[in-house]
Amino acid sequence: MCSDADIGFMRQALAQASACLPAGDVPVGAVLVRDGEVLSVGRNRRVEEGSPLLHAELDAIERGARALGSWRLDACTLYVTLEPCVMCAGAVLQSRVGRVVYGADDAKAGAVRSLYQVLEDPRSPFSVKVSRGVLAEECAALLRSFFRERRGGK
Amino acid sequence: MCSDADIGFMRQALAQASACLPAGDVPVGAVLVRDGEVLSVGRNRRVEEGSPLLHAELDAIERGARALGSWRLDACTLYVTLEPCVMCAGAVLQSRVGRVVYGADDAKAGAVRSLYQVLEDPRSPFSVKVSRGVLAEECAALLRSFFRERRGGK
Repeated sequence: MCSDADIGFMRQALAQASACLPAGDVPVGAVLVRDGEVLSVGRNRRVEEGSPLLHAELDAIERGARALGSWRLDACTLYVTLEPCVMCAGAVLQSRVGRVVYGADDAKAGAVRSLYQVLEDPRSPFSVKVSRGVLAEECAALLRSFFRERRGGK
Repeated sequence: MCSDADIGFMRQALAQASACLPAGDVPVGAVLVRDGEVLSVGRNRRVEEGSPLLHAELDAIERGARALGSWRLDACTLYVTLEPCVMCAGAVLQSRVGRVVYGADDAKAGAVRSLYQVLEDPRSPFSVKVSRGVLAEECAALLRSFFRERRGGK
């Protein structure tokens, strides 16, 4: 289930994803929203920052927690263009993000629906609402184009 | 399977865990080792830094990658006093850490053996060696004492 507002925030996450390209980072973007307003944005900056851990979700969550002055992001929705990996799904739990909306599925590494269902595990003490498939084709097309170009060589 | 060297590095991880106490952070410590030498140390600094994500493992991995100038930590062993959570097990995969040695099991949130087996998932393209139970009782006792004191109230 997604709304016009969801689509609008996913467009902003897509803009973040595009901003990964100049540094050569895999284009994944995220936006953290609270009370209908953008609290923080993030993008994959592994290459840009030389960090193995700076996925878009961790980037947005860290910035959001700093902006809010709290590590409890339960009133927040995280928009991200690609299904979160194990690390990022775990980061959602750690920061108590209340809802996750993502674009394209990640069949090989996704931990929300594909490989694991970390956010909807009945053993977890925290419940996270999940919506998927928002602007999925645009999110996936950006990734396909990136990998096609990289394989094609520069 | 663990060696005297493993026990020595776990003692250093325990010292990091103790260093969490002044800030009121849950005492979990980590040490990242490469070629028999400590590359970086980390500790849980969620309260100290006001970050929802700064678990000991992420702290050590970020510092290790910066020290090494590379995000590929496949020649490294991560020692940590508590079984890694979902986020931290995912961070081990993202940074390609080759081996993880941990102390106490975390029955409620562990993602290496307890809730999930993220590091030994046959679907994963990366294989991570795992040793557990090194100084487990000391690692667990430090946590028990912390939570007992916190419940006792200040």
